Amino acid sequence: MSTAPATAVTIMPEQLLEHWLGHRRLTRRVIEAFPDDQLFTYSIGGMRTFAQLAREILAMGAPLLRGLVTGEWGRFEEPDITSKAELLRRWDESTTEIGHLWPRLPAGRLQETVTAFGMYTAPGYHQILYAIDNEVHHRGQGYVYLRALGIEPPPFWER
Amino acid sequence: MSTAPATAVTIMPEQLLEHWLGHRRLTRRVIEAFPDDQLFTYSIGGMRTFAQLAREILAMGAPLLRGLVTGEWGRFEEPDITSKAELLRRWDESTTEIGHLWPRLPAGRLQETVTAFGMYTAPGYHQILYAIDNEVHHRGQGYVYLRALGIEPPPFWER
Repeated sequence: MSTAPATAVTIMPEQLLEHWLGHRRLTRRVIEAFPDDQLFTYSIGGMRTFAQLAREILAMGAPLLRGLVTGEWGRFEEPDITSKAELLRRWDESTTEIGHLWPRLPAGRLQETVTAFGMYTAPGYHQILYAIDNEVHHRGQGYVYLRALGIEPPPFWER
Repeated sequence: MSTAPATAVTIMPEQLLEHWLGHRRLTRRVIEAFPDDQLFTYSIGGMRTFAQLAREILAMGAPLLRGLVTGEWGRFEEPDITSKAELLRRWDESTTEIGHLWPRLPAGRLQETVTAFGMYTAPGYHQILYAIDNEVHHRGQGYVYLRALGIEPPPFWER
């Protein structure tokens, strides 16, 4: 039995994309689970509302991948969104963009060190994992908000 | 500019390990941030305490990797832990075990489909990502508990 060399395949590109898209689908269900008003008003312990957290996730996801693909970076900027319907629409557009951009990711780009949004320097894979982790982290917080509101969140394992 | 073929490297094995260990270090800081009693008693919306969530993470992390490395699976079983000191000790032992097991992961195992704990069938990489995501998800919930308790959680980006 040979042990893993440094070059062994961990996750293939299309698997990493599907992993990300699975999280996007689950986060969408969490947005949907919030009543329209609570999405923009409810919080615990002085934290941001789930709409604010979702806006951060939107600012970090597709724009990051766009920068990794094109090498062009805008400012890190959260979209101004004021309704649940608009948030869901922006969410879907952003998810579609991720799916379109992914196959254009240059070979090796995930192993290159890149400065995202003019401020965060790390290898491409690290930036993608950070964006996914940030989504999972904040979505977990949304689960607590939903539970505190007496709403059953969607199952974590369903993607 | 060539686009990523299906075989392009996304994340190298030692990078995935370091990613996981970074999360383990952050989760440890979250455990430490809880007052001893609140760790085992505080919850929101009928959810589990952070100690219970940490026990689940312990049951899923090193035991999963042990199974992937050895092909031998025990039952999925959360350790019985009753104090913060014991939880931190078990956490450190478990993190050390992950570091020792990782280099023994057979080449290609992360791409093999495996049944973990006799109940969950998926490719190895998927199982590892699920364990990490589950940790990030529940740790995010711990952040809300800490904020609700008036305690500043450790920075998410510090690993």
